[in-house]
Amino acid sequence: MSESNSVLIGRKPAMNYVLACITLFHGGTKEVNVKARGRAISHAVDVVEIVRRRFLPDVKVKTIDIGTQQMPPREEGGMPSNVSTIVISLAQ
Amino acid sequence: MSESNSVLIGRKPAMNYVLACITLFHGGTKEVNVKARGRAISHAVDVVEIVRRRFLPDVKVKTIDIGTQQMPPREEGGMPSNVSTIVISLAQ
Repeated sequence: MSESNSVLIGRKPAMNYVLACITLFHGGTKEVNVKARGRAISHAVDVVEIVRRRFLPDVKVKTIDIGTQQMPPREEGGMPSNVSTIVISLAQ
Repeated sequence: MSESNSVLIGRKPAMNYVLACITLFHGGTKEVNVKARGRAISHAVDVVEIVRRRFLPDVKVKTIDIGTQQMPPREEGGMPSNVSTIVISLAQ
């Protein structure tokens, strides 16, 4: 699947990402993957819930996958850290 | 299913909830529901990932459900607010 069907959730207001999802679906995309890491995971769930409940009731959550990604150490000689990830697949 | 199979994630350190999950599984529980609301959702994913990757590799994520819960207004005359929820079902 092309990465252009993904919306990566960061620290912007939820509505920015909601709009990105709606734009993809209106452009004919059948499946959109909402991705997030770490604390943004809660934000990703908010975005998906707003998309489904307020704007696109026909969009269903197809799958939700969680995982762990190892991040390189922030400083030399430091320990690598683990960060949780989520991918929520939406389909219409 | 009895609510005693649930672990509700709050603001304590992740290891407290990890230990709660492990204790339930060691007590013979076949399925544990890890539940969280709002910002604790990211924390719930962390807890599940630690349980699976570090302690109980036989435990699988069976289902993940997300939803919205309406909270009563904090002050009289205020607006009710929506909070996102997650339930991660673990099974061994």
